[in-house]
Amino acid sequence: MSSLEQLHHDDMQHTLRDVQALLARQKLEEDLIHRQDLHRHEDRRELVENLAHKQNVARITDKLTGLHPADIAFILEALPVDDRLFVWDLVRSAETDINDGEVLLEVSDAVRESLIEAMAPAELVAAAENLDTDELADLAPDLPKQVMDDIYLGLDTEERERLRAAMSYEEDAVGALMDFEMVSVREDVTLEVVLRYLRLFDELPDHTDQLFVVDREERLLGVLPLQRLLVNDPDSNVGELMLTDTLTLHPGDKADDAAKAFERYDLVSAPVTSRDRKLIGRMTVAAVVDFIRDKSEAELLGQAGLKEEEDIFAPVWDSVKNRWSWLAVNLVTAFVASRVIGAFEDSIEKLVALAALMPIVAGIGGNSGNQTITMIVRAIATGQMPPDVLRRLLHKEMSVALFNGVFWGGLLGLLAFALYRSWSLGLVMTLAMTLNLLLAAFMGVVIPLTMQRLGRDPAVGSSVLITACTDSGGFFIFLGLATLLLI
Amino acid sequence: MSSLEQLHHDDMQHTLRDVQALLARQKLEEDLIHRQDLHRHEDRRELVENLAHKQNVARITDKLTGLHPADIAFILEALPVDDRLFVWDLVRSAETDINDGEVLLEVSDAVRESLIEAMAPAELVAAAENLDTDELADLAPDLPKQVMDDIYLGLDTEERERLRAAMSYEEDAVGALMDFEMVSVREDVTLEVVLRYLRLFDELPDHTDQLFVVDREERLLGVLPLQRLLVNDPDSNVGELMLTDTLTLHPGDKADDAAKAFERYDLVSAPVTSRDRKLIGRMTVAAVVDFIRDKSEAELLGQAGLKEEEDIFAPVWDSVKNRWSWLAVNLVTAFVASRVIGAFEDSIEKLVALAALMPIVAGIGGNSGNQTITMIVRAIATGQMPPDVLRRLLHKEMSVALFNGVFWGGLLGLLAFALYRSWSLGLVMTLAMTLNLLLAAFMGVVIPLTMQRLGRDPAVGSSVLITACTDSGGFFIFLGLATLLLI
Repeated sequence: MSSLEQLHHDDMQHTLRDVQALLARQKLEEDLIHRQDLHRHEDRRELVENLAHKQNVARITDKLTGLHPADIAFILEALPVDDRLFVWDLVRSAETDINDGEVLLEVSDAVRESLIEAMAPAELVAAAENLDTDELADLAPDLPKQVMDDIYLGLDTEERERLRAAMSYEEDAVGALMDFEMVSVREDVTLEVVLRYLRLFDELPDHTDQLFVVDREERLLGVLPLQRLLVNDPDSNVGELMLTDTLTLHPGDKADDAAKAFERYDLVSAPVTSRDRKLIGRMTVAAVVDFIRDKSEAELLGQAGLKEEEDIFAPVWDSVKNRWSWLAVNLVTAFVASRVIGAFEDSIEKLVALAALMPIVAGIGGNSGNQTITMIVRAIATGQMPPDVLRRLLHKEMSVALFNGVFWGGLLGLLAFALYRSWSLGLVMTLAMTLNLLLAAFMGVVIPLTMQRLGRDPAVGSSVLITACTDSGGFFIFLGLATLLLI
Repeated sequence: MSSLEQLHHDDMQHTLRDVQALLARQKLEEDLIHRQDLHRHEDRRELVENLAHKQNVARITDKLTGLHPADIAFILEALPVDDRLFVWDLVRSAETDINDGEVLLEVSDAVRESLIEAMAPAELVAAAENLDTDELADLAPDLPKQVMDDIYLGLDTEERERLRAAMSYEEDAVGALMDFEMVSVREDVTLEVVLRYLRLFDELPDHTDQLFVVDREERLLGVLPLQRLLVNDPDSNVGELMLTDTLTLHPGDKADDAAKAFERYDLVSAPVTSRDRKLIGRMTVAAVVDFIRDKSEAELLGQAGLKEEEDIFAPVWDSVKNRWSWLAVNLVTAFVASRVIGAFEDSIEKLVALAALMPIVAGIGGNSGNQTITMIVRAIATGQMPPDVLRRLLHKEMSVALFNGVFWGGLLGLLAFALYRSWSLGLVMTLAMTLNLLLAAFMGVVIPLTMQRLGRDPAVGSSVLITACTDSGGFFIFLGLATLLLI
């Protein structure tokens, strides 16, 4: 017991490589045996195949045994579908001693689907039985209705009530992220009594950093941090030592706001109460971390027009579905831009240099607009927008755009002159760049603020809209100016 | 003490609005008094002004008093520079009882700069004196050298050593994120002894969910979770109950890997040890949460080519500097694409429809390529890439591209036909779309995997590179095919 068996994070990479190697070896061996023995007796071949197979299965099972459900999830996500289902069968065999319900909770949505499809209804019911109510609520949307009905029958009244409550909240509400594993005490007892009470437990719930102090009606009176319990005189009273000004959440609160509060105050757990101050659950930093990670993933994916995280081994068709809507939107905006150009075909025919120069004006406008929009979407997300924000931001962004327009536009004007030996073309280029950058700045401020005012998430779709504006707008400004001044 | 003073997250929004309103009112009042009293006696006017000013200052100070440093930071970030410095002066006045060093730690980098600039060296030294060594290390890069020298002189030998160590690690290493507030115990004592030892503390460090068990040489033997301390018999020994297979970090470990381990195992704290297993610090979930948030911010900003988060009230010139490098890169790639078009000017002059259609091919290629790249960058970040990944991914992405090329390309071909009544132009459109989508898929797989192999972060710059490929490539393919088949 005196040496520390270091569980280091590199270990999981190694375990993954080992499992991948074993799976590859298994395929190779079985293939070899199959080929070598083609001319031998059928039974004999099967015997050898079976032996090799069993050996490999034992080796892989050995690797998996005792792993944390999150580690199993990590490995399953990294394997192609056929290997994944093979390993999933091994995981669920008795020897590994792994809670398959918890693995289902840990894997990504796309992978979870593939695992659930491979399980019989009875197996799913059995897997779900080991889960807490709040975990069950997370899994429920992915389970077949028949399975959920069976699980529901196996719950007691309190659990059913909790499950129903947890499932009734929006995905991004505190209610959907809270759990029910809270330890509560009364205010009129001494710390000594609390210490004795805690010794009745086999273990405390994870992330128990504070006990909840409630009255007889389960109304929250305050919280007693474990550290206060530990450093204070056992004869003191809970009521004297509890904190009454800690963060309290309601199940309908936005998870995003709760997450920000956790970050701001460095919390580990927070009580969730009903409107009449009854303690109904708690939220932990583990749920917050998962939420933050999921949200930032979704934002990054959303910016590239991916609906959800893709299982990189997903069938081609799944990928097509995940990506098509963005391509469709893009097709429409590109088509509109193309029609703007079409309207100036006569000008282009007369001065073909315009065709070569116009994508520069549109492209740089799009980039600049996206910079503005990203900055403003971030600022909106922090909730720190001042009342006179529109005026201030427009002033600032338009100033930046004017500077960039004169500087970069001037540079491009010189380049255009160098290429086509026309001062007037250079001038049009500089003017068009400046105007398109001003348009980009204006729309970059107005689009996200308008979306916010309309109650929509400014992070979604702003980027498509601004690019559409700066593309069509850029072509129109450049070709329009050229037609007026040059043709 | 029996009622719960709810600290609800909406409160900060309200406080912010109140402070903003008070600041606006102050300006208005002072302005009014100034105008009304222009004809009165100078002294009298100053008197009234002073009175109104004092009243407003008292009101704002009242709002700020007792706020958490993170809340003060929130408010400061939301204010324009002049208001911000005014409030910052109030915060630092004695009445509010706020630790200004901690506020400096909480604000964003850009805002921190503006606050530090407004402080005298002596004030900075005083602010820093209240901070822990690890916090000081975070602040150090932003402080003037003279101030750091003064602070350094005020530290004892152990603190100096820790500060030096903490500052010696890369920003994204565990060493830079760890703190030194760990409570350690010996393995050969009983829980009773530990409980009595803890009562000697006034308070335990935040996020103490486990005690570290060390030997006489400070080597880590295991950890004793507080919950084990609480539920077990006080007569049992630490050595019997400590866990020896928990996650241990080294200061040189990547913070990103450590954050993933925290997420995976739902940790609150983890010990940091040197190579010879000596306990040198600990990492907490609070540092992990901040790290995850900062990283995802940086990624989102980076995708739009912003170097760092902008203070939305920053001077125009700061914004220009923050954004210019991306615009410069974009200018180069756009110029290259423009030259590709320039090479086909003869063809465009003959068939001007090409000018209108070419941006569609380039644009959709760029979008599709960015989808592929985003998906692959995500997969690389999770560390789950299988050994034969290149072959698998190329096969899948090229299949998706082929499908999209035939489908969307076909649709565009029909549109081109409808607009220009030329079947061959429609055919060129379809072919070019398909080829450019295949190019996008190929580069979308190869670029991030190559960057990874070269040891670079595939999240940075991949998007610029792919857009450059699909723009120039798209123009080249479309105009090249058109020149071959139509001209």
